[in-house]
Amino acid sequence: MDRFDCVSPLDFRYYVPNDRLRTLLDDYVTERARVRSEAMVEAAVTRVLARMGICSQEIADEVDHAAEVVTPEEVAEEEARIHHNIRALVNSMKTHVSDEAKPYLHFTLTSVDVIDTAAAWRLKGAALNGVLPALEELERVLIDLARREADTLQVGRTHGQHGVPITFGFAIAEYVSRLGGRIHAIRATAENLRGKISGAVGAYNASALMIDDPEEFERQVLAEVGLEPSPISTQIVEAEFVTDYMHALVSCFGVLANLADDMRNLQRTEIDEVAEEFEAQQVGSSTMPHKRNPWNFEHVKSMWKQFMPRMITVYSDQISEHQRDLSNSASQRFLPEIIVGLLDGATRLTKFMGRLVTDREKMRENLAMTEGMIGAEPAYILLAALGHPDAHEAVRKLTLQAQQTDTPLGEVLQASEELAEYRSQLTDRQREIILDPSQYTGIAAEKARSICDLWEGRLGLA
Amino acid sequence: MDRFDCVSPLDFRYYVPNDRLRTLLDDYVTERARVRSEAMVEAAVTRVLARMGICSQEIADEVDHAAEVVTPEEVAEEEARIHHNIRALVNSMKTHVSDEAKPYLHFTLTSVDVIDTAAAWRLKGAALNGVLPALEELERVLIDLARREADTLQVGRTHGQHGVPITFGFAIAEYVSRLGGRIHAIRATAENLRGKISGAVGAYNASALMIDDPEEFERQVLAEVGLEPSPISTQIVEAEFVTDYMHALVSCFGVLANLADDMRNLQRTEIDEVAEEFEAQQVGSSTMPHKRNPWNFEHVKSMWKQFMPRMITVYSDQISEHQRDLSNSASQRFLPEIIVGLLDGATRLTKFMGRLVTDREKMRENLAMTEGMIGAEPAYILLAALGHPDAHEAVRKLTLQAQQTDTPLGEVLQASEELAEYRSQLTDRQREIILDPSQYTGIAAEKARSICDLWEGRLGLA
Amino acid sequence: MDRFDCVSPLDFRYYVPNDRLRTLLDDYVTERARVRSEAMVEAAVTRVLARMGICSQEIADEVDHAAEVVTPEEVAEEEARIHHNIRALVNSMKTHVSDEAKPYLHFTLTSVDVIDTAAAWRLKGAALNGVLPALEELERVLIDLARREADTLQVGRTHGQHGVPITFGFAIAEYVSRLGGRIHAIRATAENLRGKISGAVGAYNASALMIDDPEEFERQVLAEVGLEPSPISTQIVEAEFVTDYMHALVSCFGVLANLADDMRNLQRTEIDEVAEEFEAQQVGSSTMPHKRNPWNFEHVKSMWKQFMPRMITVYSDQISEHQRDLSNSASQRFLPEIIVGLLDGATRLTKFMGRLVTDREKMRENLAMTEGMIGAEPAYILLAALGHPDAHEAVRKLTLQAQQTDTPLGEVLQASEELAEYRSQLTDRQREIILDPSQYTGIAAEKARSICDLWEGRLGLA
Amino acid sequence: MDRFDCVSPLDFRYYVPNDRLRTLLDDYVTERARVRSEAMVEAAVTRVLARMGICSQEIADEVDHAAEVVTPEEVAEEEARIHHNIRALVNSMKTHVSDEAKPYLHFTLTSVDVIDTAAAWRLKGAALNGVLPALEELERVLIDLARREADTLQVGRTHGQHGVPITFGFAIAEYVSRLGGRIHAIRATAENLRGKISGAVGAYNASALMIDDPEEFERQVLAEVGLEPSPISTQIVEAEFVTDYMHALVSCFGVLANLADDMRNLQRTEIDEVAEEFEAQQVGSSTMPHKRNPWNFEHVKSMWKQFMPRMITVYSDQISEHQRDLSNSASQRFLPEIIVGLLDGATRLTKFMGRLVTDREKMRENLAMTEGMIGAEPAYILLAALGHPDAHEAVRKLTLQAQQTDTPLGEVLQASEELAEYRSQLTDRQREIILDPSQYTGIAAEKARSICDLWEGRLGLA
Repeated sequence: MDRFDCVSPLDFRYYVPNDRLRTLLDDYVTERARVRSEAMVEAAVTRVLARMGICSQEIADEVDHAAEVVTPEEVAEEEARIHHNIRALVNSMKTHVSDEAKPYLHFTLTSVDVIDTAAAWRLKGAALNGVLPALEELERVLIDLARREADTLQVGRTHGQHGVPITFGFAIAEYVSRLGGRIHAIRATAENLRGKISGAVGAYNASALMIDDPEEFERQVLAEVGLEPSPISTQIVEAEFVTDYMHALVSCFGVLANLADDMRNLQRTEIDEVAEEFEAQQVGSSTMPHKRNPWNFEHVKSMWKQFMPRMITVYSDQISEHQRDLSNSASQRFLPEIIVGLLDGATRLTKFMGRLVTDREKMRENLAMTEGMIGAEPAYILLAALGHPDAHEAVRKLTLQAQQTDTPLGEVLQASEELAEYRSQLTDRQREIILDPSQYTGIAAEKARSICDLWEGRLGLA
Repeated sequence: MDRFDCVSPLDFRYYVPNDRLRTLLDDYVTERARVRSEAMVEAAVTRVLARMGICSQEIADEVDHAAEVVTPEEVAEEEARIHHNIRALVNSMKTHVSDEAKPYLHFTLTSVDVIDTAAAWRLKGAALNGVLPALEELERVLIDLARREADTLQVGRTHGQHGVPITFGFAIAEYVSRLGGRIHAIRATAENLRGKISGAVGAYNASALMIDDPEEFERQVLAEVGLEPSPISTQIVEAEFVTDYMHALVSCFGVLANLADDMRNLQRTEIDEVAEEFEAQQVGSSTMPHKRNPWNFEHVKSMWKQFMPRMITVYSDQISEHQRDLSNSASQRFLPEIIVGLLDGATRLTKFMGRLVTDREKMRENLAMTEGMIGAEPAYILLAALGHPDAHEAVRKLTLQAQQTDTPLGEVLQASEELAEYRSQLTDRQREIILDPSQYTGIAAEKARSICDLWEGRLGLA
Repeated sequence: MDRFDCVSPLDFRYYVPNDRLRTLLDDYVTERARVRSEAMVEAAVTRVLARMGICSQEIADEVDHAAEVVTPEEVAEEEARIHHNIRALVNSMKTHVSDEAKPYLHFTLTSVDVIDTAAAWRLKGAALNGVLPALEELERVLIDLARREADTLQVGRTHGQHGVPITFGFAIAEYVSRLGGRIHAIRATAENLRGKISGAVGAYNASALMIDDPEEFERQVLAEVGLEPSPISTQIVEAEFVTDYMHALVSCFGVLANLADDMRNLQRTEIDEVAEEFEAQQVGSSTMPHKRNPWNFEHVKSMWKQFMPRMITVYSDQISEHQRDLSNSASQRFLPEIIVGLLDGATRLTKFMGRLVTDREKMRENLAMTEGMIGAEPAYILLAALGHPDAHEAVRKLTLQAQQTDTPLGEVLQASEELAEYRSQLTDRQREIILDPSQYTGIAAEKARSICDLWEGRLGLA
Repeated sequence: MDRFDCVSPLDFRYYVPNDRLRTLLDDYVTERARVRSEAMVEAAVTRVLARMGICSQEIADEVDHAAEVVTPEEVAEEEARIHHNIRALVNSMKTHVSDEAKPYLHFTLTSVDVIDTAAAWRLKGAALNGVLPALEELERVLIDLARREADTLQVGRTHGQHGVPITFGFAIAEYVSRLGGRIHAIRATAENLRGKISGAVGAYNASALMIDDPEEFERQVLAEVGLEPSPISTQIVEAEFVTDYMHALVSCFGVLANLADDMRNLQRTEIDEVAEEFEAQQVGSSTMPHKRNPWNFEHVKSMWKQFMPRMITVYSDQISEHQRDLSNSASQRFLPEIIVGLLDGATRLTKFMGRLVTDREKMRENLAMTEGMIGAEPAYILLAALGHPDAHEAVRKLTLQAQQTDTPLGEVLQASEELAEYRSQLTDRQREIILDPSQYTGIAAEKARSICDLWEGRLGLA
């Protein structure tokens, strides 16, 4: 397959050329991984059949061997002939075992026993061995950044307008916490993915024919691949285990997109508080040679826009008629794409947050832009505390006056006769905060550090 | 407001005229509930201020009183004047307290402290006191139905085609389990909803000005309304607590829609295994007087189509720029609609599943339709177990022969010379199952009962 | 119905209190409008029956009268009794006519003949008499603004970074054009909405029983309400006429959201190029008295987030099984909400774009921020035109040098020995543009004006 | 790239192995097509520059040659070095031209001039040369089927319940009409796709530097590739041209999904009116050898579930900040996937509708199932026409009586004393229809034929 003759950018542009992603995910998200994991489930079944005395251990060994040597190439060729992917797998595996072993391959199973169980194994493995390590690495980078910038003064913004001060580390700590929460959610839902070995309509019809306790058979087979059974199943596992898992991934993508959005907004020419480190050879624009665009952050947002809506597919796939219609089959083949999309975003953020350039001087300049107007809040709070009956309205009028006369708010306040009585009751520290609101950061720095400590501990990242 | 001059059918058609829904949800989802809960948060703040010695207990009592007496009408009128809903609430409450108390109303708060905390309280209350009781009632009905029909023979279907037999109770038990799982998910995410009292940009700037441990202040205020704080916040609570909660609701709606779809398909004229009980006066069609349409089940599916896509809004609202942009404000005002939509579906299903008419005779007839063709699976399994090297293919050919000669599969099998050797090795019981596959139900009945026992126990529904 | 006991903010907050919206839309989007329009269709049918000699003109007159006097209150009461909305309408209308007339009411119709036809009439009317006038008013405001600011220098931004200059009027003209395009799309799809009078399964079974040319009967009935028939129908009109119409609305909402986003970004404290005019009494923040938040623009974005995802519902409703399942019924009752959401956004933008405050001085300051760095593009183009073999790379290096030495790019260029040969070949005008790139606006001003002329003409807005 | 190491099933499973799809789409949807079309746009620019006398014809010829010989491999290698895809293309093309020609490559362009113009060319080409031929082939198959079955009696169903009769050809004609409508919509929106050659922020800043009428320059370049310009542009073409086009595709997919759903429902074991023709070797189920699943129809539904939600991405991409942010870049790279998904569905339907097996006998049996109950509608209509004041209610009661006594409705009606007076006034033909409602098909057959004639003519398919 020539990459230039492909349609989906996911493989030829974002996944296949990315060694980091392939190392993390190859065992779980590729077509090869699909075939291997399905063969692995077939082998697990035969091992348990041997343990239960239904077939010999030699047969189980043969099938184990077949599962190891069967290739996706063989299976694909057989599928092209018979148009049924699991029967193609079974037929292919049969060519690697003796005639005695043949009947015990896929014995009492329905295709979806294999498909759903193998899919759960892959989705779980992708999470535990791919997604979570990558997200923890990003978490590590964010914790380091939040600590480094815990005391870096920055204006807090709401509605894109200057509000009251925070520190940049505090702003990053928000993402430490939200990402930490999503890491927990992904782990919990991944570990809760379920398999099934309950046959064509979920009632263990076939296995009950041969085995006294077919639920015990199911438990043992699934234990071989580290899974527990769906509480009950039709032809398919209860849909909600995968639904919850995909929700955890997609809602994690939302956190990454929000972080990316914040970073790209901080890079606006007029704000200019942070920057992506550019490589020496890198071209910003094909026509505006001076441009340094925050394109990696924009890219993360764009990938989120591509993958988030796919939750609609996941929610739609909750519905399957009676003991199952197949209309969730092709759609679910696309699920691993969401994992790749998420990790494309996460690894990119790890790289660019890890080399984020912070301009502390510019942050201070921006904070100073409104000439003390951000002191409006402490002024109003303190006036109220001193008993002013309508402090908010009084200060709102002062801010208008400050704007109209182009005077720092602190000075306008100092000059106000109406407020003289209250002013005199302020402590020195309080007066200082109103006049220099850059001191008005609450517990931003401490909070940044405590959130970092919390998640470093919880995730064992120390 | 005249209902006939309204646009949204949610209120005039589905909610306001529905006493059951109003009893369950009125305290949490209406505009009145919004104002009351926000006033309640304001009062909680002043009580804690008094406890911390910042204001007197008398002032706290005054504010408690104001929170009880302030009306949504007053607040709406003030908002029309000043275009700010929380300031309007505060101004309205001020008219009910003394001048001494006025400064301590909303003291050190930002609007969203009140908005997000009150919203968490309402969403949590709606779940615990409205959604969960309604869903548990549906669960009760499904458990009763699954038990009643645990032994009712029905054909299991995949792809809309007859597969192998189950029991109708087993089919219902699938929904007992899936709905049980969603009840757990809704409870867990509802109990995990968070508030915040951390000020305009989340750094406790204002409260730290007056209180030594502003996080303790936040904890105490939230404890007054039964909530815990967001681990960290900007102007708003971390988005994912609400995101997870809405996911739990919407994924629960998917389970209801699947159940409704299954029921309406079983009512197709040709299948006709179940029926909605019709009321004597009810008209099925304006022009086809004989019609008995499964319209309540169709309605549930239709409501799911209306509300499920709103998760896109929820996921989009995870993104808020810097310490917050307001673009999640109007959109989040619509969140309670999803709760109402879900309960409209749940209460309707409770009613119609509770009076579901099951036609056991028709189920048996349908099972018999394919003249034993559903014995293909046990035949193939047993042949394989007896060592036939290609049992699946052998039986597949028999089924073609049975179809072409219009002969029951069992007879074709009995007549097959090729298989004579294997046939002689079958036990009586095994031969019986192949000839009368209605006995081939695996452990369907037991499984139906054990799932019912499980969820009855877990939910304390006994 | 008390507005404070309602759930959906659409009515109690955004629609019912908004006189402007009600004037535009009341006849088309309310429950009253639904009942009236359905009665109107019933009357149209009887008029055509009379014209065809099937009933007398007196009967048609009676039914016309019944359609005028029947109230939504009566119909709702009857529906509560019989659970069928169109039969309820017919029963209610029957109470207003003689026994002779009764059989000719709803004669040969199926409910959906009335429902779909009346819905098409309402959606069309809402577009032609509500949506389009409102959008044209916004277009008028945008044209005026684009003309007023056609020569106002502003930096063009890509990726949030300064690119090369435009004019503010040119930026607005983009929206004149895109909105103009959507106005056309809405008109075209609205005028293409279709009705049907083809009976229960679309084959004119009933009407063919009584009328020789039932398609002619359908055409005449629909002509009475200004519609054409669906080319073919099942119980329902072909879905795509409504799908296209909703797409036109939703894609128009995207244009409004983009405009709103641009305006709120221009109001960031650091950019500060435009402002919403505030009312004297208005409060910006409950705790930060100095804030002037761009909340109306944020609101439009938020409403777009609420309504855009509903296209998923519309696309899902394209699927209806066989001659129709009902799962599009409840979901389609919510369609008028999208119209209200769109006009809430449009009328708000009309108001706030109409009073947009432009700070031309600040625009010039921002343009000057990068000290000529935006001259990089013309420098590179001109060098290339003069034959420099790698002009882009040469200028990219100059921009790095300019940044490192904090020197205006023009000066760096003037001083470059390497480029001396090329520099000498520049015309005065060209040199001027490189040194003062504020002259480098291409044809921005002319384009702004020509786009305004174009749409003013096309829409007859002069 | 090894297909088994890929993630996206679109390429390795659905596109690359499908010769038919590759023949239709390779020139427009692959990565190779992307690079070729972008080179083509660069060449078109230089040709127009030569025509305008800005560079020599020799240079234009050199660039034409470079566009032909440049390979995606070269471009990919250069992009890996400089991280900018269009600059990589330009650099690669430069290696194929003389030093004199180099400056005129990409002269006055911004990257997106090339990207958007080439994308419009590809999307348009994919529609005109791939999508439309494939859809017209499906339309041809549907027309043939509708004609063949124009008189085949079938029960019309609403809510999955038997309504009144139609013909199977009439049911198919519904899809002839809806698909025909979508073919028109796709053609119209494809032909309306636009390019742009207006530079970095859309104001022709660079081209106006060198060319007197830069809009004429743009028009001529675009004419070279068969496109017209966006009325106005920022860095990008107005978003709505692509939005409308994707809507046309996605709404067409909805029609295909509805058709697929109808066909799979008609294949339910109990209904069994149509069948997919199976290949001799084909396996229906890995464990139930008798199964013949309608999996190709299910597959089409499943692909629709995967691709339809991507309209959310398309609508989100309407929003781009100011003169453009890049967050639509990666997301738009995935657009061609929707085209492939649609054609996977269309070509599959062409194949399986083309070999659809219709069981006319079973259709008649199903029609007869309700023992004349479907005569309820004509009975009620005729009674009403004869002046019965409450015909609907009278017939509804008869249907209950027929059910309770298990008597054909016609007989119950014949026996009704209450209705004797009306009965006697029926014509023979009318009485016949009530007793044998299989004659009650309205104009189904004629309508089927006229719709076929209409679209055969419109699309020139004869």
